[in-house]
Amino acid sequence: MNILEIDTVSLDEKTKELVIIDQTKLPNDIELIRISDKETLYNAIKLLQVRGAPAIGVAAAIGMYAIASRLEVDDISDFKSEYKRISDYINSSRPTAVNLSWALNRMYDTIADISSDVNSLKEILHNEACKIRDEDIAVCEKLGEYGLSLIKDGDGILTHCNAGQLATVRYGTALAPIHLGLRKGMHFKVFTDETRPLLQGARLSAFEMCSAGADTTVICDNMASSVMKNGWVNAVFVGADRIAANGDVANKIGTSGVAVLAKYYNIPFYVVAPTSTIDMNCPDGKHIKIEQRNEDEVTSMWYKKRMAPEGVKVFNPAFDVTENSLVTAIITEKGIIKKPSEIF
Amino acid sequence: MNILEIDTVSLDEKTKELVIIDQTKLPNDIELIRISDKETLYNAIKLLQVRGAPAIGVAAAIGMYAIASRLEVDDISDFKSEYKRISDYINSSRPTAVNLSWALNRMYDTIADISSDVNSLKEILHNEACKIRDEDIAVCEKLGEYGLSLIKDGDGILTHCNAGQLATVRYGTALAPIHLGLRKGMHFKVFTDETRPLLQGARLSAFEMCSAGADTTVICDNMASSVMKNGWVNAVFVGADRIAANGDVANKIGTSGVAVLAKYYNIPFYVVAPTSTIDMNCPDGKHIKIEQRNEDEVTSMWYKKRMAPEGVKVFNPAFDVTENSLVTAIITEKGIIKKPSEIF
Repeated sequence: MNILEIDTVSLDEKTKELVIIDQTKLPNDIELIRISDKETLYNAIKLLQVRGAPAIGVAAAIGMYAIASRLEVDDISDFKSEYKRISDYINSSRPTAVNLSWALNRMYDTIADISSDVNSLKEILHNEACKIRDEDIAVCEKLGEYGLSLIKDGDGILTHCNAGQLATVRYGTALAPIHLGLRKGMHFKVFTDETRPLLQGARLSAFEMCSAGADTTVICDNMASSVMKNGWVNAVFVGADRIAANGDVANKIGTSGVAVLAKYYNIPFYVVAPTSTIDMNCPDGKHIKIEQRNEDEVTSMWYKKRMAPEGVKVFNPAFDVTENSLVTAIITEKGIIKKPSEIF
Repeated sequence: MNILEIDTVSLDEKTKELVIIDQTKLPNDIELIRISDKETLYNAIKLLQVRGAPAIGVAAAIGMYAIASRLEVDDISDFKSEYKRISDYINSSRPTAVNLSWALNRMYDTIADISSDVNSLKEILHNEACKIRDEDIAVCEKLGEYGLSLIKDGDGILTHCNAGQLATVRYGTALAPIHLGLRKGMHFKVFTDETRPLLQGARLSAFEMCSAGADTTVICDNMASSVMKNGWVNAVFVGADRIAANGDVANKIGTSGVAVLAKYYNIPFYVVAPTSTIDMNCPDGKHIKIEQRNEDEVTSMWYKKRMAPEGVKVFNPAFDVTENSLVTAIITEKGIIKKPSEIF
């Protein structure tokens, strides 16, 4: 099974189930999980079985359809209340990525004012979930095209975390330009920050890039300065979990540091994200809520043996904020926003 | 057993053995290794059972005495040749830290021109090894005093790798000011970069700092930008494996990135090292040989389960070079060298 031939999240039309790749098992095993109840969907998001901002949004939409299709409620008001209650529960799984609430709100808004029968509501939810999924695919194709226009054959690219196919339905955001270029026969030298603590760079990005045939090197996050200084990096591509109205960008922890380094070494730092990532209700980076996660992720390695002293404190923010002044351009499906700090 | 009450490297006068703490077992177990033959000494250095530039130098000196004391050779020339052969072998264990060759050369130089009997040579080697050890302790005490003059009670300090007691005989280099301040009743908030791939920050520095009673927080290396941005860091203290004649500093991989961040956030970046770390034969950072280590250290976690895809490339330099312009000051036992880029 080639990981690139499986959509990260999909809808099984026959069984009306959300189907996701279990990303906690990568890169060693490719396993799928079928979801149709709220606890499994909540946990799938919280425990990072599905992760990556766009993928979380699409999974939430398809998942809510799968759950809704099984609600045995005849009264429309009761159906909407129950649906909303479950939707709010799913929304509480993780706070930082805007895509989760965006997708859930969009799904609920399609039925909120409809006065019909429950089966019609289920049909509307089905169609909206499919639309959200299809739009994600189309958006990522555009991100690939715009992003590819900024790099050339043979370039060295540094990435952080995983904003590739595994973070979306298909194609990816930050990795979309690379995937597209590779499919056109271009060559790139890709450096994937392993991205502690959960190693999405080593486990997911390196896996995707190797599967796509790219010349891929895994590095520890602290080696970014060395590879940049050695002149091996022509561009940095990262994704985003939320972009504030002023262009400040929240992304996986460590992105901020990569941006500072890129500025220092005069390397373009590109943020690749759908316009749905931009939250106009959020004025700047200080207002983006940063998820704090369990310290075990830092203190215990992949197989749960502790490697830090008992009793030591741990700081484990899952994200950080890169100020707009460090962002060379934001690539969206509608075009490239250059020097966001001067525009927003 | 409190780790702070055991010298990292020492000489057992009775048995004429080098005794070291096995740092690969920390922080979970405190175990000692007794060394008196060249293969064990070579491996102890190569496999990081003893590590930290000053500790490596002292271990090499004491270890060579332990080995020499057992050489059953009567002829002086033969003894010196055999000694030199073994010394060169030990010198080949790791290339980057200047302290190894410095200590080995110093030991050999004390007997090179002596025309006496072998027992006298062994006595000279014994005394020189003890001198090297004692000087290391005295030097670290001075580093502590000078370094402490640059920080105040309540400060937040960020460290990288381990340049503490475990990197020297006693007291440490970069951590010496903190240890000294704590012993005087001061309080510091210490952030230890875990320092991938081998986690000297999480396993060793955090262990030392917790044992010393400091308010200690382990962070992933990529979180340094966040803690600095949050205003939690008043100063950065790091050690050094080699300082070039122009003030460029080679230290554990990732130090360069920390220095760039410190500059960006206007935080003083202090390098704490004995003058013996300065290599006047090395004109600048480009001439410092950077040790490359096995990729397993990156791809397999602490308990050897692979977490990066098979076949992926890995970059695993053990050190990087921080240019002199990013160094606020170099603290040595002879005083503080401010703005090395303007002096050298």
